[in-house]
This record gives sequence, C-alpha cells and structure tokens, in this order.
Amino acid sequence: MSAPKKVVLAYSGGLDTSIILKWLQTEYGCEVVTFTADLGQGEELEPARRKALDMGIPEKSIYIEDVREEFVRDFVFPMFRANAVYEGLYLLGTSIARPLISKRLVEIAEEVGADAVAHGATGKGNDQVRFELAAYALNPDIKVIAPWREWDLSSRTKLLEFAEAHQIQVAKDKRGEAPFSVDANLLHTSSEGKVLEDPAEMAPDYVYQRTVAPEDAPNEAQYVDIGFERGDAVSIDGVAMSPAEILTKLNELGGMHGCGRLDLVEGRFVGMKSRGIYETPGGTLLLEAHRGIESITLDRGAAHLKDELMPRYAELIYNGFWYSPEREMLQAAIDKSQEHVTGTVKLKLYKGSARTVGRWSDHSLYSEAHVTFEDDAGAYDQKDAAGFIQLNALRLKLLAARNKRLK
Amino acid sequence: MSAPKKVVLAYSGGLDTSIILKWLQTEYGCEVVTFTADLGQGEELEPARRKALDMGIPEKSIYIEDVREEFVRDFVFPMFRANAVYEGLYLLGTSIARPLISKRLVEIAEEVGADAVAHGATGKGNDQVRFELAAYALNPDIKVIAPWREWDLSSRTKLLEFAEAHQIQVAKDKRGEAPFSVDANLLHTSSEGKVLEDPAEMAPDYVYQRTVAPEDAPNEAQYVDIGFERGDAVSIDGVAMSPAEILTKLNELGGMHGCGRLDLVEGRFVGMKSRGIYETPGGTLLLEAHRGIESITLDRGAAHLKDELMPRYAELIYNGFWYSPEREMLQAAIDKSQEHVTGTVKLKLYKGSARTVGRWSDHSLYSEAHVTFEDDAGAYDQKDAAGFIQLNALRLKLLAARNKRLK
Amino acid sequence: MSAPKKVVLAYSGGLDTSIILKWLQTEYGCEVVTFTADLGQGEELEPARRKALDMGIPEKSIYIEDVREEFVRDFVFPMFRANAVYEGLYLLGTSIARPLISKRLVEIAEEVGADAVAHGATGKGNDQVRFELAAYALNPDIKVIAPWREWDLSSRTKLLEFAEAHQIQVAKDKRGEAPFSVDANLLHTSSEGKVLEDPAEMAPDYVYQRTVAPEDAPNEAQYVDIGFERGDAVSIDGVAMSPAEILTKLNELGGMHGCGRLDLVEGRFVGMKSRGIYETPGGTLLLEAHRGIESITLDRGAAHLKDELMPRYAELIYNGFWYSPEREMLQAAIDKSQEHVTGTVKLKLYKGSARTVGRWSDHSLYSEAHVTFEDDAGAYDQKDAAGFIQLNALRLKLLAARNKRLK
Amino acid sequence: MSAPKKVVLAYSGGLDTSIILKWLQTEYGCEVVTFTADLGQGEELEPARRKALDMGIPEKSIYIEDVREEFVRDFVFPMFRANAVYEGLYLLGTSIARPLISKRLVEIAEEVGADAVAHGATGKGNDQVRFELAAYALNPDIKVIAPWREWDLSSRTKLLEFAEAHQIQVAKDKRGEAPFSVDANLLHTSSEGKVLEDPAEMAPDYVYQRTVAPEDAPNEAQYVDIGFERGDAVSIDGVAMSPAEILTKLNELGGMHGCGRLDLVEGRFVGMKSRGIYETPGGTLLLEAHRGIESITLDRGAAHLKDELMPRYAELIYNGFWYSPEREMLQAAIDKSQEHVTGTVKLKLYKGSARTVGRWSDHSLYSEAHVTFEDDAGAYDQKDAAGFIQLNALRLKLLAARNKRLK
Repeated sequence: MSAPKKVVLAYSGGLDTSIILKWLQTEYGCEVVTFTADLGQGEELEPARRKALDMGIPEKSIYIEDVREEFVRDFVFPMFRANAVYEGLYLLGTSIARPLISKRLVEIAEEVGADAVAHGATGKGNDQVRFELAAYALNPDIKVIAPWREWDLSSRTKLLEFAEAHQIQVAKDKRGEAPFSVDANLLHTSSEGKVLEDPAEMAPDYVYQRTVAPEDAPNEAQYVDIGFERGDAVSIDGVAMSPAEILTKLNELGGMHGCGRLDLVEGRFVGMKSRGIYETPGGTLLLEAHRGIESITLDRGAAHLKDELMPRYAELIYNGFWYSPEREMLQAAIDKSQEHVTGTVKLKLYKGSARTVGRWSDHSLYSEAHVTFEDDAGAYDQKDAAGFIQLNALRLKLLAARNKRLK
Repeated sequence: MSAPKKVVLAYSGGLDTSIILKWLQTEYGCEVVTFTADLGQGEELEPARRKALDMGIPEKSIYIEDVREEFVRDFVFPMFRANAVYEGLYLLGTSIARPLISKRLVEIAEEVGADAVAHGATGKGNDQVRFELAAYALNPDIKVIAPWREWDLSSRTKLLEFAEAHQIQVAKDKRGEAPFSVDANLLHTSSEGKVLEDPAEMAPDYVYQRTVAPEDAPNEAQYVDIGFERGDAVSIDGVAMSPAEILTKLNELGGMHGCGRLDLVEGRFVGMKSRGIYETPGGTLLLEAHRGIESITLDRGAAHLKDELMPRYAELIYNGFWYSPEREMLQAAIDKSQEHVTGTVKLKLYKGSARTVGRWSDHSLYSEAHVTFEDDAGAYDQKDAAGFIQLNALRLKLLAARNKRLK
Repeated sequence: MSAPKKVVLAYSGGLDTSIILKWLQTEYGCEVVTFTADLGQGEELEPARRKALDMGIPEKSIYIEDVREEFVRDFVFPMFRANAVYEGLYLLGTSIARPLISKRLVEIAEEVGADAVAHGATGKGNDQVRFELAAYALNPDIKVIAPWREWDLSSRTKLLEFAEAHQIQVAKDKRGEAPFSVDANLLHTSSEGKVLEDPAEMAPDYVYQRTVAPEDAPNEAQYVDIGFERGDAVSIDGVAMSPAEILTKLNELGGMHGCGRLDLVEGRFVGMKSRGIYETPGGTLLLEAHRGIESITLDRGAAHLKDELMPRYAELIYNGFWYSPEREMLQAAIDKSQEHVTGTVKLKLYKGSARTVGRWSDHSLYSEAHVTFEDDAGAYDQKDAAGFIQLNALRLKLLAARNKRLK
Repeated sequence: MSAPKKVVLAYSGGLDTSIILKWLQTEYGCEVVTFTADLGQGEELEPARRKALDMGIPEKSIYIEDVREEFVRDFVFPMFRANAVYEGLYLLGTSIARPLISKRLVEIAEEVGADAVAHGATGKGNDQVRFELAAYALNPDIKVIAPWREWDLSSRTKLLEFAEAHQIQVAKDKRGEAPFSVDANLLHTSSEGKVLEDPAEMAPDYVYQRTVAPEDAPNEAQYVDIGFERGDAVSIDGVAMSPAEILTKLNELGGMHGCGRLDLVEGRFVGMKSRGIYETPGGTLLLEAHRGIESITLDRGAAHLKDELMPRYAELIYNGFWYSPEREMLQAAIDKSQEHVTGTVKLKLYKGSARTVGRWSDHSLYSEAHVTFEDDAGAYDQKDAAGFIQLNALRLKLLAARNKRLK
C-alpha cells in the first residue's frame, strides 16, 4: 500500500485520536480531515473543533455532524425490527454505530478528494473489522489506516511521550490510565478492560455510567406505552416523536429504573473471548416492546422464521458485515415481515426490569373468538384437531412401526 | 377406530379428570387404569387414589408415581442445555412435561394390556397434540381418547350435571367457574383463559401463584452460585444436589425474589394466538446461569450454531415433537457441545431479575493473556488483524468494484 | 359448514372433474361455475367448454384461460431464483401450479358471487392442501369443497356407475383404470400410483411422456446459451423471449435430449412417503443455468445464505404455503440477491444430462487478476493469508489448549 | 515466530515439494521429516522415498503410509452421510483430504519431537487454510511453515533456478509450465488455473484425467446395486467390500460411464472466485445412491433438517473447519439420523449420468398400504385431511381476515 496523501480521520477530540491525528501528519506527512460525529455519546463536540484547529487543521477540513437521527432511523431501528441480540444477550450497541461512521468517512473522502480514512480502534478488537469492512464495501479503492496496528506507541508511557513531544495537551485526569475503556452512543455505553478483565469478579459499581443501580431506582413501578408503526417505535405515552427523540426518552426512562445493565463474556470475531459491561437502557425497553407488539400482530410462521434468522443477522452486524449482500437479504426478509407490526405496548419498569404487561392493535391477529374457553360460536371446530394430530402423527407412527418390526 | 377395551387415563384426581374417568366407564364400558404423576405440581396425590377407589378402580389399576427426578434429569435438563425459549420468551414449562406423561401412559398400557390411553386436554390447545404425538411415536398401535373432543359436555353446567348424575363429588369452590385455568409442575405454573383473555389488560395480581411480586421481594439482593457439569446444574452454593432438588431450590430462591414472571401472547401450533401468564422462577435462574457458564466454556462456533438451532428445537418441543427424529438429531448436536460446559456462575437475584455477575471454570476458554489491554507478551500479534480484515473484505471489495464499474 | 350455493370448480374437462361437476349439482343443488386453465399441460381446452355446456353450465359461467405467461413469470421464475429443489431432487412442478389455480378460483368466486370453490384432488395427497391453504389465505371466508374426501364414490366401479347414471360420457380408454396417474403443466409432468407403487421396481418406459429416453437422444451434444436478467431467463441463443416462450423452448430442447427425468420417493406433507416419476426437461436446464450464472455474479455470502434458506423455501412451496408470510419473507430475501444475476450461460445437452460449460457477464465478480497462478500485479497479497488463518485459528487454538490442559 | 528446529513436511516427491524440502533445509537449517501419504492419488510412492534419501533425509525420517482406508472410513463416508455439496454442486474432494494429512503431520511431529509442520499450498487458495486450521486445532503450539507465502521464488524461472542450484532433478516434462494444476485422491481429481482461468471458455478435453467423455462411454446402460448400512456403503452388487475398496470400485464404474464431471466457478474462503474442473466419479454415484436409500429409510423430519444443515456443514469442510466443535455438533446430528439408513439402491449408469431407479430395505418407511390409490383397508382416513388442512390454514385465515378488515 502506497502512503496516503489525504486522510479523513474519525476524530473524537480525545487524547488518543489527537495523537493519531498528529501521528498521521508526522508519519505520512499527509493532509488530515477530521470527522466528529454526534451519535448521542453525550459529549460536547465543539472542543473537538478547537483541538483540531490547534493542530493545524483548517476550518474547511473539520467536519462535525449531528447524525443521531440517521443513526436511529437507518441503523438502530432496522436492527431492532429483527429483535437482534448477539449470543443471546448483547444488544449490539457498539457494533451498529461503526458502519455509519465508516459511511460518513468514505463519503467525506469522496467530497474532499481523500484517498484514505483512519480510525482509532486497536488490533485486538472487533471495531477495526467493522470500520474497515464497511469502508471497503463502500469504496473498494479506499485505503484504511489503523495506527494502533502500525505504530510502536505500545504503552501509555510512549503515548504520553509522543503527546508531549508534539505539544498535544493532556488533560490531568488522562495522565493516569483509565481503569477501563468506554464506548458510548445513543444506544448504549460499553465498558471493558483493566478492572473488568477477570470475569469471575463482579464489576465495580463505578463502571456503570448511564443507569442507576436497580437498588437506587424508584420504589414505585412506572408504566409506559410505546406506539409502533411498521415495526418502528413512533410514540411514547401517545406523544409522537422522531426516532432519536424516542430513543433519548427511552434511555431516560430505562436509566432511571436501572434497566438494561448487562455483564457479558462474548466471543469476538477476531477469536478470543472478552468481558464487557453494557448499559442499553432505552434499547432494552425497545426490544421488549417490539417483541410485545409482534406477539399480537405478527403471524407465527413469520415470527418463527425471524427467530431462526436472527442469530445470523446479529452475528453479521457484530462481525462488521452491515454492508454485505447477506445482511441486506436478511433485512429485506425482516422488513417484509413488519408491514403490520403496528400498535401499542404497555411496559412496566421496576427496579431493573422492563416487562410487557399489555398490548393492543388494530392490526392484531389475536382472536378472542377462537381462543376463548367459553362458547366460541363455531369459530373453531375442536374435531378438526383430531385430523390435524393424526396426519402430524402419521410419519411418527410409521417410524414407530418400523422400529417395532425390526426389534 | 374401534371402541377401547382398557384405557390408561392421565388422572389428576380433580373434577375434570374424574368426570372423564366416569365418562370412559359409561361411554365405552371400558376398564380404566389411572396414572397420577407427581411432577412437582405441589398437590397431594393420595386424594387421587381415594377418588379412584371411590369410582370403582381397583387398587392394582391405580398408578401413583413420583417422577420428579426423571422429569428434571431426562426432560428439563436436556432442554436447558439448548437454552430453549419459544418465541423469544417462553421457557416451555408445560410443553416439556407432556412427553413424560405420555411415555408413562404408554408404558403402563403395555404392562396392563390396555389398548388405549386418555388425557384431559381440550381440542383448542397444544397439549392434546403433545400427548398424542408422543403416544403415537412410542406405540403406533395405541388408541388415544380425548374426551373433550368427543363428548357433548360443552358447558360448565353440563359438566356439573354429569358429575351430579354420576355421584362425583364436586368441591364447593369448584362449583363456580375458575377465573382462569392453571397447569403446574416443578418447572412452572401457567395460567390462561377467562380473566386473561384480553391481552391489552394487565393480569390481575391474584393470578400469580408461585412468585411474589417484585415489589414484595426482599429489599436486599441475594447472590447464589450455581455449579454445572457438562451442561447440567449440579450444585447450589457449593452443595451438590440431585436434578429435582436443584430445581426445587432454585424455585424457592427465584420465587422469593419475584423472578420468572412472564406475560405472553404466543402462537399455538393449532393456529390461533393465546395469552398466558407463566411463572418459571427456578428455570429463569437456570437459563441465565447456563448461558453464563457457556459464555466462558463454549467455543464461539459451537455457541452460535446452538443459537441458530435453538428456535427450531424449541418449536419442536412446543409443538409436541419431543419423540421425533429431528428433535433427537438436534439433541445429539446440543449434547455434543456440552462436554466442557462445567464451572460455576454467580447470579444476583433482586426484585424480579436474575443476572449473571461472575463466572469461573477450569474449562474456561477465556484467556486474559489474549484479551488484555496490557502487554500480552506476544500472545496475539495485532498485525494478523490486517490480513484477517483484508481477506474478509476481499469479496466485499469485488462487489463494490463491480457495482462501481456498472454505474 | 353450511351447504354451498355457488361453486367455482377447477375443471379439466376430464372424467373425474366432470363427475365432480355433476355431483356438486346433485349433492348440493348448487350453481357451478367452471374454471379451466391452460397451464401448458398440452391439452385442448375447447372440449372442456363443450362438456360444461352439455352438463348445463351456461356460457357465462365457463371460464377458460391461458395463464401460461402468468404461471411462468409469477410462480415458476420466482421459485427458480431460489434454486428450489425438494428433498434434494424434486423441482416442484406440481406444487407451484396449485396456488395459481386457487388464486383464479378465488378471484372468479368474487367476480361471480360464489361462496365456494371446489377441486378434484384426493384426500391422500399434497394437492388438496395446496389448493385449500391458498384459497383460505386469499379469502378467509371462502368454502372449499373437496368431493374426494366427502363422497362415497370410493372405487372405479362406483365412479363409472355414477357417470352412467348421470349420462356423463366416458371415453373408451377411460373405462379401464389408467395404469398410473398423471399431472402436467408447462413445467413438468408427474406420474404416480398403480404400476409405480413398488419403489424397488424400475418404472416402465411407457410412463415417460415428455422426454425421450437418454438412449434415444441424439448422438451429438447440443450447446445452448441461456441469457439471464436479474435472475430470470430472458433469451435463448441470443433470441429474447417471454417467460412462457422460454420455458416452452427449454422443454423442447431438454425433452429431445432426455433431460430432467427423475424417479423419486418423497415425503408427503400428509405424512406418508410416495413414489413419483417426474419429467422436468426445461426446468432442469433452467436450474443448471441459473446456478451457472449465479456462480459468477452472486457474492459468496449471498449464495451461501440462499443455499441455507432454500430447503425451507422449497418445503413451504411443497406443503402449500405459497401465500404465507414466511414464503414472502424468503422471497424478498431471494429477490434482493438477484439484482446482478445477469449474464449468459452455455449448457451442453447430451443423452440425459445438462451441464454448464461456460458463463460470462458484465456483472461478473470473477477476477482473473485475483485468482491467477501468474503474476497478479499486486491484486492480492499472499501474506494477508497468514493473518487471516491466525485469527480464524485463534478460537481453535484456545480450545486445543484448554483440552490439553485438562488432560 | 521463532525459527523451526525440526519440521514434518507433507511431501509428494514432486518438484515443488522437493524444492520446499531443500528450502527448509537451507532457509532454516532445520531437520526435515517427510510424510508421503497414499490417499489414492494413483501415484507410486516409492520414488518419493528415493528422492528424500537423495536429499539427505535419513530412512527413519521418511514416513510413507497408505491411508486410503482411514481416508474413506473416517472422512469421506461421514461427509457423504450428510449429502454434502458445496455451492450446490461440488463434492468437496480436495477439502476432505486436507484434515487427514494435517492430522498425520501433527501426530508424526509429536512422535519425532518436531516443533513444526510444512505444506506446499499457495497463499491464494483454500488448502493453506485447511492444512493450518486442522494443525492448530490438533496442536495449538505447533508451528506451520507455508513456504509459498514466505519465499521469493515467485516465478517458474526462479523455482527452476533454485532447483538447479541445489541439484534437484527436474523431470523433462516439468521444465515447461503445466497448462493447469492438479490435485487428486481416491475421491476426486481437481484441475484449475492457466488454461482454465477464463470461465467463459469450455475446458479442453485433455484436462479430464479420470473419466471418459460421456460421448466415449458405453452405448449400453449399466445397472449397479449399492448396499448401505447405517448410512455407509458396504457392498456393490451384493459383494461386501471395505470402504476404500467400495470407493475404488465406484470410481471405476463411474469413470467408465463418464459420470461425475463438474465445471464450476466457486467462492473461495479467502475471498475470490475460482474456476475448477472436478472429476468425482465414485462420489457422484455414492451421493445419488445415498440420497436414494435415505428416501425410503429416513423420516421426512430428519431428512428436511439434514437438508437445512447441509450447506453449513459443507461450508465448514470447504473452509477448513473439520476439526471444529460446530462441525462435530453437526456430525453428531447427522450420524444420529443414519441409524436406519440401511438397504440397497439400484443405479443406472449411462453416458455421464447416474440415476436411482430402484431402492429397497427392511428398514423402509414406505408404506404401500398408506399411499395406494387402491383400497387401503382403513390405513388412512381421508377425512383426517380436512382437520389437518383447517388447522394449518387457521393462521392464514386470521391473517387474511386482518388484512381484509384493514382495507
């Protein structure tokens, strides 16, 4: 790979990506364009602009964007239509943000004539894979620079020396090592590494940043109604909201009630297992409610097929294959199923749990006439069940007869 | 189908199956053998003996058995190895008990020379299917009598008249209609029908029978260590127990902390949707803990394959295909995966939730050496990731190049 | 079910459906509307009109339609996009025609104000299921009459007596029993029953109706180029044709070369196994060619996902669930994958076999630059493979190390 | 990776692996042990011994083994139980041989105290992955040397110069470049590269080495009976044979009749598409016959599950994951299904095709009593079908009613 001439860097404004910015300038002598996205991580973005200016990036090469609506509408919501969970439990909060960042990096590279993009993910994790697969899938000719895999700044000390040598300001609280590493966006906060590395040890309380401990949640349950249209949440307690507004509100509710904490050991795509603490307050409510509304509006055949496809779909997102034909095929199937997933779900939030306690819809497939223990006025003929069972049993009977015969 | 001569009846001792007993005698003039199983439903069985005797069943034709250990060891545990949940949420507590009952009915039929078995499930539900598919799969020549599909006792009034006419005692509290219908065993209690038939309405508190409301659970969390061997729970807090003892203890713990309540609308095999309230306190802890121990002892490839197979496996159990070649194939695959699922999980129980907070095992695949943010002493070469990504990206690049070319 | 007042009958003009027509008139006293479709079965339709008139059906109640283009375009082609084969071998020629017939029956019922439809399939086969599931899925209130399950005309003798009694003409060659039963349409001819009922016995030559024996095919191979656009065949040897024209031409070519004969024992949805002789000359060529064009235009991820979904998709069609949400979900996924399945395949036809021998496309993903044994000018860096293998191996190494440790 | 001290090399005795042998000696100064396996590739092995001796390998470091029985019994047969085909067509002849070779390399390494193994696969193909994943899965501490990824002998000229410089004899016919590359074993011969690199061009006749052209096959069909026990072939025309004997005989039969030729473009695990010509004469017969015997002895539920699992299973083998927990899980499921796959299949071989024309078994599930068009003496009650259809239709009716209601 020839040296890059102009690089679009995913820039947070923090110490690590500031060092990367400087390293790109010094190592490759290349022009750097910064891209800083508001994905709902809860940090001010303007300081990133100042820092970039300080390191000599011209105003026109600094991209700062609020992509929260796009993030929820085009990434989070499609994923929740699938009820996607990785390894039974993880709501994929980090995984789903990476393709959006790569998409903007590649688009900006095209706008500004850059030949490369760069990210600050390490060589041990999944994020490098997610950033890079997405970038290559969107532009097969782009170069991707992953400084953590290239440079020799392999210890905290070396990083700080580099920062000092290049006059990069280091906030006082960043001089020591953080006790764990954090990623955040509107969907979740993840924490991993350092104090969390022994999976036998309980995670210390100070790791949690976005949800109160269930013990500290209100002593009274709260009920909330979430409205859906075609598989996407569109209202809370009857108030219509935009996608990002809804997720923001659900985060607030879930966080307050201690919902969505997860302590998980997961299998990384790069091969080892890692332990993470995830907080997905709004997402946890959304998943529960989505399953709730599907339970009355989605046909059993469609629902079961979705359940069977889901693990693969979740794995594709986790592994970084958002922009792959197979993810798009599965999405087409899932989206097809959501045409009537419209209605309202009532959740009960209490001390760390969020449970569906009621659901209703004009699109409901639930038929009290059919299911009732009372007289059903002929809606269902119980005698049909005899034939249904006989023919479902036939192959089992033939098997049993064969096995009996051979004994 | 010719009339049965001798029938083994799944007999609870309750009003409904007593009526069935009498109806079999009067309708078919056949000999009746009763089978009453202690599946952990929490009811005395001896009254069933007395009632059977009262209705003229000779002592030798009354089978009363404690099958709790067999139930947990040969049915519940194999199912939990698969992390089976139906439609994302239901732990299959009713479904998994039916094949065991049918198995004993068929075995007893062979012992006593009966040509038929009978059950008290209605023509609208899944249980009839589960009873009958299991029976036919075990004996292709057996007759199965399902009185609810045959007789004309279609209202409560007619049933009570039949009882009165045949001198069947009706407990005072059974004279009115129950406000809902209940099934229970060591794994769960389910409630459905009547007051629960509107899925928009919250289930009344009095429906719950086996778990306290989370609001009434202790204000302090409790921690419990569950030990596993080859995928099955074998100890609690270091004390070795039998399968049924473990589930009993987990029920006690889970019930006390309000764990395992579920309000679900599900798709029945016979075609309509129904709403059930399920309480699975111990099973909820067991599932969480099993996932926890798998998270460090099960390889990612195996774990993901299990997750993909699970919905089908759960569907087979739900639909009554326990004794089918395809369930046995899936079980063989699942059991194969559990060889090293050995170790201990620490759960935190609090106000309705049960969460894994620690796990450890001699069989662990978690390698701190590989995952650490610190110096890994060469365990993992970050440069390998570049090649890994390049080759995973290659097909996506070729796709992107093709699409670019055609624009 | 109340008696039908007006019935739309799937009417072939043959003896059996003529008897059904009369039986509907006499049994139910209902008005009958006939629907006779040209699905490419190779029979004149006008005689059906005459016979219907003879039995008193007024001209306006006789529907005779050429649905060949719709059949191929909306049913056969979508199915072939999936490379659908049932139980590894069967091209679903009968299965795929049934939903179209039901669709027209239901549509005509709506046009003419009929409350029922009727078909001539027996109670042992799959076709009754296919007809009826499709009808109910399209109109939940329609009645379906299946005379073979209702009447007592259970032997050939009784049928002929009924015909005679009602002055239905019986062709001389229909007086004896046919030695096997046949279904045909533009996609295939199936034969089953009677002389074919012993699966150990080779099918007699006279069963085959649409393909020459491979031994009688030309001694010279023939090459044919099939052009595809977005997954559908659009031309043969460079000549653009309509869907039905293409299948007709492929039938001619395949039939002449003895292609597409299949002797199969299959598992019916109703539970037993049956043996069929299928001739699908054009379809066999189409499947081979479609796989051929996909091999260069479809990404591996998409192709493998399709292969995994295919058996389920084929099963749904076989079982009669064409009009089900899960078939439509799978179709959406499959169709999504076909956007670039455009190009040309060269087949070699010879003595019963049809094999891809060349394929080319502007949409090709095949890159000689990447795959060449020669110098690839840097398209592919072989060193990337080392990292690719290391990270794919990592979990296997961790497993092996665990197992070694525990020995 | 530190330099290897003692290497076990997969050694064919050909020019390429002789150069590798010398290169290992000169590049690493390491001791070399050679392993030459008779996998049925049809070459003399003794010349390999002489060449190894010539290059200074001591007698005790030369391993030459006939592994044909192990190959067929423990690798080929288990794979055929699954009916495994990759991308719909490829019988995995190369893929299945690699894990066996790696297994012996690793075992010999343990015996002789070697710290590394080496193979002659290039950096562009799948074989490197298969060799190495298998080796690492069997010994996590083994080193694997892949000279083609390391050295700079990147052209034919350089290789020949190296050979000359190190006094490696080059057969006259190896001086020029081969027009394509070949791999062979008892299951198949594959050819790829060079003259085959344009997938639009028909493969020249001289590529085929193991099968006659269908045009040159006998003008008379031949019939052959293949006997199976528990899913494995055990006899031909009534004569019991060992696994390798059976495959040898089937190769002879298939080759003579021009069966098993395949011209395929496939997706490699390393990301690009490649074109191969495969000849699998015996395997083609075996697959057809195995499907044939399953058709009467395997239950539909088991058969369909197998069909759904197969593509994944085939992909795992193709990608080199033979020694992975997920392949072993699938194998456990597949093997479970084969308990009654016992009986005999009659194939017709003619001019390139092999078709099942009859099958019989004591373990047959085919019931003429159930399927017959004639009077079935009550084996099957056609009226059961009505209930079966009604309940299968119920969810479709509820869907249709919902959609109608919302119009």
